[in-house]
Amino acid sequence: MSDNKKRVYLFGNGEAEGNSGLKNLLGGKGANLAEMNLIGVPVPPGYTITSDVCNEYYELGKEKTIELLKEEVENGVKHIEKIMGLKFGDKENPLLVSVRSGARVSMPGMMDTVLNLGLNDDAVEGLAKKSENPKFAWDSYRRFVQMYGDVVLGMKPENKDDIDPFEEIIEDVKEKNNIELDTDLSVENLQELVVRFKKAIKDVTGNDFPENPWDQLWGAIGAVFGSWNNERAIIYRRLNGIPSEWGTAVTVQSMVFGNMGVNSATGVAFTRNAATGENIFNGEYLINAQGEDVVAGIRTPQQITKEGSLRWAKQQNVSEEVRRSQYPSLEESMPEIFEQLNSVQEKLEDHYKDMQDLEFTIQDRKLWLLQTRTGKRTGAAMVKIAMDMLDEGVIDDKTAMKRVEPSKLDELLHPVFNKVALKSSQSVAKGLPASPGAATGKIVFFADEAEEWKARGEEVVLVRIETSPEDLRGMHAANGILTARGGMTSHAAVVARGMGKCCVSGAGSIKIDYKERKMVADGVEFKEGDWISLNGSTGHVYKGKVETSDSELDNDFAKLMTICDKYTRMYVRTNADTPHDAKVARNFGAKGIGLCRTEHMFFKGERIKAVREMILADDEAGRRKALEKLLPMQRSDFEGIFEAMDGFHVTIRLLDPPLHEFVPKEMENQKEMAKEMGMSLETISEKVESLLEVNPMLGHRGCRLGNTYPEITEMQARAIIEAALNVKAKGIDAKPEIMVPLVGRKEELVYQEKIIRATIEKVFEERNDKIEYLLGTMIEIPRAALTADEIAENAEFFSFGTNDLTQMTFGYSRDDIGSFLPVYLEKNILKVDPFQVLDQEGVGQLVKMGIEKGRKTRPDLHVGICGEHGGEPSSVKFCHRVNMNYVSCSPYRVPIARLAAAQAAVE
Amino acid sequence: MSDNKKRVYLFGNGEAEGNSGLKNLLGGKGANLAEMNLIGVPVPPGYTITSDVCNEYYELGKEKTIELLKEEVENGVKHIEKIMGLKFGDKENPLLVSVRSGARVSMPGMMDTVLNLGLNDDAVEGLAKKSENPKFAWDSYRRFVQMYGDVVLGMKPENKDDIDPFEEIIEDVKEKNNIELDTDLSVENLQELVVRFKKAIKDVTGNDFPENPWDQLWGAIGAVFGSWNNERAIIYRRLNGIPSEWGTAVTVQSMVFGNMGVNSATGVAFTRNAATGENIFNGEYLINAQGEDVVAGIRTPQQITKEGSLRWAKQQNVSEEVRRSQYPSLEESMPEIFEQLNSVQEKLEDHYKDMQDLEFTIQDRKLWLLQTRTGKRTGAAMVKIAMDMLDEGVIDDKTAMKRVEPSKLDELLHPVFNKVALKSSQSVAKGLPASPGAATGKIVFFADEAEEWKARGEEVVLVRIETSPEDLRGMHAANGILTARGGMTSHAAVVARGMGKCCVSGAGSIKIDYKERKMVADGVEFKEGDWISLNGSTGHVYKGKVETSDSELDNDFAKLMTICDKYTRMYVRTNADTPHDAKVARNFGAKGIGLCRTEHMFFKGERIKAVREMILADDEAGRRKALEKLLPMQRSDFEGIFEAMDGFHVTIRLLDPPLHEFVPKEMENQKEMAKEMGMSLETISEKVESLLEVNPMLGHRGCRLGNTYPEITEMQARAIIEAALNVKAKGIDAKPEIMVPLVGRKEELVYQEKIIRATIEKVFEERNDKIEYLLGTMIEIPRAALTADEIAENAEFFSFGTNDLTQMTFGYSRDDIGSFLPVYLEKNILKVDPFQVLDQEGVGQLVKMGIEKGRKTRPDLHVGICGEHGGEPSSVKFCHRVNMNYVSCSPYRVPIARLAAAQAAVE
Repeated sequence: MSDNKKRVYLFGNGEAEGNSGLKNLLGGKGANLAEMNLIGVPVPPGYTITSDVCNEYYELGKEKTIELLKEEVENGVKHIEKIMGLKFGDKENPLLVSVRSGARVSMPGMMDTVLNLGLNDDAVEGLAKKSENPKFAWDSYRRFVQMYGDVVLGMKPENKDDIDPFEEIIEDVKEKNNIELDTDLSVENLQELVVRFKKAIKDVTGNDFPENPWDQLWGAIGAVFGSWNNERAIIYRRLNGIPSEWGTAVTVQSMVFGNMGVNSATGVAFTRNAATGENIFNGEYLINAQGEDVVAGIRTPQQITKEGSLRWAKQQNVSEEVRRSQYPSLEESMPEIFEQLNSVQEKLEDHYKDMQDLEFTIQDRKLWLLQTRTGKRTGAAMVKIAMDMLDEGVIDDKTAMKRVEPSKLDELLHPVFNKVALKSSQSVAKGLPASPGAATGKIVFFADEAEEWKARGEEVVLVRIETSPEDLRGMHAANGILTARGGMTSHAAVVARGMGKCCVSGAGSIKIDYKERKMVADGVEFKEGDWISLNGSTGHVYKGKVETSDSELDNDFAKLMTICDKYTRMYVRTNADTPHDAKVARNFGAKGIGLCRTEHMFFKGERIKAVREMILADDEAGRRKALEKLLPMQRSDFEGIFEAMDGFHVTIRLLDPPLHEFVPKEMENQKEMAKEMGMSLETISEKVESLLEVNPMLGHRGCRLGNTYPEITEMQARAIIEAALNVKAKGIDAKPEIMVPLVGRKEELVYQEKIIRATIEKVFEERNDKIEYLLGTMIEIPRAALTADEIAENAEFFSFGTNDLTQMTFGYSRDDIGSFLPVYLEKNILKVDPFQVLDQEGVGQLVKMGIEKGRKTRPDLHVGICGEHGGEPSSVKFCHRVNMNYVSCSPYRVPIARLAAAQAAVE
Repeated sequence: MSDNKKRVYLFGNGEAEGNSGLKNLLGGKGANLAEMNLIGVPVPPGYTITSDVCNEYYELGKEKTIELLKEEVENGVKHIEKIMGLKFGDKENPLLVSVRSGARVSMPGMMDTVLNLGLNDDAVEGLAKKSENPKFAWDSYRRFVQMYGDVVLGMKPENKDDIDPFEEIIEDVKEKNNIELDTDLSVENLQELVVRFKKAIKDVTGNDFPENPWDQLWGAIGAVFGSWNNERAIIYRRLNGIPSEWGTAVTVQSMVFGNMGVNSATGVAFTRNAATGENIFNGEYLINAQGEDVVAGIRTPQQITKEGSLRWAKQQNVSEEVRRSQYPSLEESMPEIFEQLNSVQEKLEDHYKDMQDLEFTIQDRKLWLLQTRTGKRTGAAMVKIAMDMLDEGVIDDKTAMKRVEPSKLDELLHPVFNKVALKSSQSVAKGLPASPGAATGKIVFFADEAEEWKARGEEVVLVRIETSPEDLRGMHAANGILTARGGMTSHAAVVARGMGKCCVSGAGSIKIDYKERKMVADGVEFKEGDWISLNGSTGHVYKGKVETSDSELDNDFAKLMTICDKYTRMYVRTNADTPHDAKVARNFGAKGIGLCRTEHMFFKGERIKAVREMILADDEAGRRKALEKLLPMQRSDFEGIFEAMDGFHVTIRLLDPPLHEFVPKEMENQKEMAKEMGMSLETISEKVESLLEVNPMLGHRGCRLGNTYPEITEMQARAIIEAALNVKAKGIDAKPEIMVPLVGRKEELVYQEKIIRATIEKVFEERNDKIEYLLGTMIEIPRAALTADEIAENAEFFSFGTNDLTQMTFGYSRDDIGSFLPVYLEKNILKVDPFQVLDQEGVGQLVKMGIEKGRKTRPDLHVGICGEHGGEPSSVKFCHRVNMNYVSCSPYRVPIARLAAAQAAVE
């Protein structure tokens, strides 16, 4: 019945019919096992049935497929028997195999696996005798019957919460015999289990458990193919865009056992240190154990290298004597095996040219490698390993750069909690990891008090239900910010990231009581002044003071950035509103400011009073009077920023938020304001009331302000240009770019342009001096993107404000998304929060259209992005692909953006 | 120096070198004057200098242009002299001419005109002698000098508020002589004026007033060309998209005088009645008068026809004796001239095939036509004239249909104020004409009281600062609604238009004091119960009770609609939430419901309680319990609507507004609600607080509700389908379309679809009956339009919600636009309110894209619009052009939409 098509690929004993190039046919696992054979790594022999057969299985059915496979599979079993010197189903010397799935890409945990296949009432006796360990043999047998029943015969309950029928039997036996742990089951208990398991199978399925190993094998192969279309796998494929035609391969491989006595062992190892990246071979092992024992943590695992073992003993306060007798390294306990393992690990890293994570088993003093894969690592290790391997000549600079995940750089840039300290700390809540880093401090509930406490030398964490621009100075004073409401792009989150300050937002389980100055989290009551710690990288909130340590940027980081600069096409600016932020960003390699928000400056000190005077004024004259007070303050802000960005472009956005953000909403604060301004509370209240809007996001803000109150635009244009001229006189190279926000129609920009250019011409005349400047606009309203060709007639540059553009393209208010976003993510209606990751499909269309239309009018139009997405790697790569000139992001994300931009350029 | 190019076109005495086809060259006026000559209408002779010369004037300058024109212009003057038997500048028999501009399209009042040109110290004597009227002659002379000084010599002050130097002199002379009216100036006074005017000219310009008529003529021609580029004209052209290259023509024409004695007269006439459309020649005239005297209203004008005169006398209580002696008709006073005029008017209407508005002058028993143009008319007259002319065989049905401006139909559909009553009424405020019609009633400030008052038989007008869904029943009870806040698309405006109820919104000058139950408008205080009247077509608010009359739809209207149906490609549905509205719309020709908003049903009676129960429920079970109460109510609503729309599709939108719209925000109302629900005020307040959103427009609403609370969708789907099956049993042909609102991602629709289809399958099973239904979505979020190809995979129809789409594409909140829209319109940053007129350039791009992408996936996708724009003519025409299948609008706009759709089809 065969048709000469090759369906089975053998491997073992240093030979293999496949190789790592055949992933599509053999699956990742099968191809890798073949490859390891080819480079001389000892791997338990076996064979792989191709993924093509999976399609045949669904097309032709199980019976036909078995017919097609029969000869080759039998041949494969013979091949394993020969190498291992064992016999499938043999009473004396039984061969046991594993049957595993393996698709082209890894689909962890999605499909089925059967271990210890080949055991039956005969073979178990052989295994017991050969291993001189009846308990091991019977435990293996009962595990196999259970697994076979669950996986192949479909007895695993569909609902996770329902009880597995086999587990029920185990519980019964344990109860009857007063046994607590599975490991305490006796040989007799295990034998009883096998009998009862088989009865359960007969009861449920109506069929006997198959004693014939060939029946077992075909059943398992069919089950693996069948699992390709189980519900979990289908959902996983849909989520990850994996076509169902790919199918899965099936690998049948000899079992090896690390638990066959004192000459057996099992372990895991890393070719380099996964935490630090140091080029030191390391790992752990256990004598007479199974792989899962190393992970389970019941026995203390031993170190593989002597050096590692010595260091471990020192950390754990274990004497050299105890260490040597009870916890010797593999290097000491089985030196020849260690040598073999060491050379294998060198070979593997050499071959795969990346740090490997190995699993090995020593069966009766023979080393078998069960798996090798690229090892996961911390951000620091990622950078160090990539740069070390570049130095070692193993990989080139492009590859080294691509090896670093941009988002992982974040870990390097913010202070972190001491890992040991963390272990003994109590997590009382979990919010969103809004701004990474670690922070500890005393709880303060009010922003002004945070300032006061800080001023008298206290370390504080500001805890608020949510924050607003009025809290800005308090946020600055705090080590970290914790909010009960708000998402990843809430005010607290955005400002904190901008400041590089740790923030946990939206920790909904925390109840804050401002009046009583206390909060309750996980049943624990915290009063003002109590210590608390925040992990902004995980969202965890800890009780008390957890130790932190600063992260230090090393040479490797600098080297990586240099490589980025070599390959990148886009450059990176920063979003910064203060000279301090500008300097931080410049140190991280920012080449200019992409967004300087002028409104944040309005809150500082005396300014807010002048701003409020302007808002309260009844007419233009009154507004002008107040604006005159603001002018010198804004000017001096801009001077500082121009100085910090000497030689680079600084994009300054004109006033954007609605005016009501500058006045207090609470009666208490209005009273205070009335007193301060010498006005009646009624006047203040009326004015505030009249400014309130139903949808402030879509209200009187952005250039709508400057177009209704041109005097505001005049003041800001004057402040910018006077500042530029002032620093020019000091030899500073200021390059101002004036950005008009929230333009939706060309006419809005035209009107602003008229005001700005007229004002600047006046300043030039007054000063008898000039300076180059650019005038452009944010593209943040869908209509602006749709009519970008017209807008580009007047805009000298575009900056995509993808925060607002996302709000309007989706119709999502960032401030209100919390009521449905979690449900949408859970139900997979949204895959990601579009405020974190740019929606390339929808919002991206507008961005692309905006750039193309803009450049149709003005081919050399300089284009950037200044939304939060400018620091998110996949979004940065999108910006590269749509031909932006730069991305702009918060200071602490500049390196991330630089790396992502460079990667995009070489991808 | 001539170049053989023809620059001047003569006309007069029944001959003309031009015709009405040469508008581009001769301007509208010149072409029309030529045409009138050709059809034998007596027109004062003259000639037209082509608009090409205007360009030459700007290219070559004045001197060169005069050289090029000289021969032809002199020839033209000779031509006039010959026909009139007069001589330019002659002492005995002087020819006077007018010099007027005339562009391709009318630019009323934008450019300059000079009259009585040719007068000088000699000619004035000739005129005095010939007319035997020295005062007429000198008055003409002083007027000419003044006009020449102002227009040609540029002495008219630029700023309107500055005083004209000539007026100053007039005032001085009048004061010195104790004269009040200009008409009382004596010949001597007029002579003094001429002298002093000339001196003023010399003083200001340094030159003498030109006595030579040729100098006068060239000066005037140059001035007219020059006025093409005055600021007013440039702005007007920019606003109306008129290219400056078009230029203006100049027409020089003999002056004729209706004020040369008792054998002279002047008048205006209409070939049909402009108010009613009746085919009756009518008009007014004055003996021995100038055109402006007829309009000025100092003397009582007389009727042209005897029939008109008799009717006038009856209305004015003038006895037949007095009428015949003092106010005889032209038909009686100059029967032969009347006959001539009557035949001219017939000829003109016959020629232009439309109702004409004529100006004529009788000089010394000779009739001259000065102008004819298409007459302005009321909506009713527009329909009647078009249909009459169709019946008369003058025009075909397409032309008749195109003659009616769709927006004018509005006047026919709503009750109107009695015009006479209006004249004696005091307008105390002006707001936006939000919903047309006329309403009178007693002022009531609270919606629930409006209901009570109505119940006890009072006529009320509901006056609110603004309205909310809670006011719905009160709005229904009121004759009209007046609000101090909100635009043309505010809640009050939209709901009122839907109800066909008169509404004036955003009357900002009104101060409303709820506590004192009073309002102040234009200084007048109104208390609760005082009578007030609203004109929803003009926005005027009147004190007291102004009489209204119902408008009646006649056969002409029905005939027009039949013609529309013959030509239209799109059909028209209605936005209706009640059987009553559905019936009204169906009577107006709606073929289905395009938008049935289910939330309006939630406010009626007991329902709001169940809705609030649902909102207050802590869990799904609680919500389901409340929804069960709502189910039968919703079902019975739908039954009524299906019955009213028997045989037509009914698109029902699932719940759309955020839940907080259903709970009271004021403490007082919360207290009441707490009592009603048997819950603590605290619980209510907390819940309301937790529902409030920063930007509700972009918050938890639309399908986001149904996706987070699937049980709401389930209830609504069940109510719709159960209702459809119930009426089916009664023989009604129900065609439900279930519409999911606010979809931005396909996945949102997919999730809703799953719930809806599963629910419906269940209902089908329970009832053992089926019915066809469609499942589609609103396209109202920019992202939906951008990804319409994907959404169409699951949507069986699209309905463009252009209200929300406009909000998000522009980033304008309809509720907050009032703070900048008036400024934007004034500064011409916006040309129109985009919520009234669809922004074809921006929002339209998304609409077009959405339709094209949607049909790429599903070629037969049925597409409509259900935003407010569906009843606005230019927007309806856009919908036709982008290939929508239908538009849907409020019931009272259905005829307008039908007409606009049909016009679009033939355009």
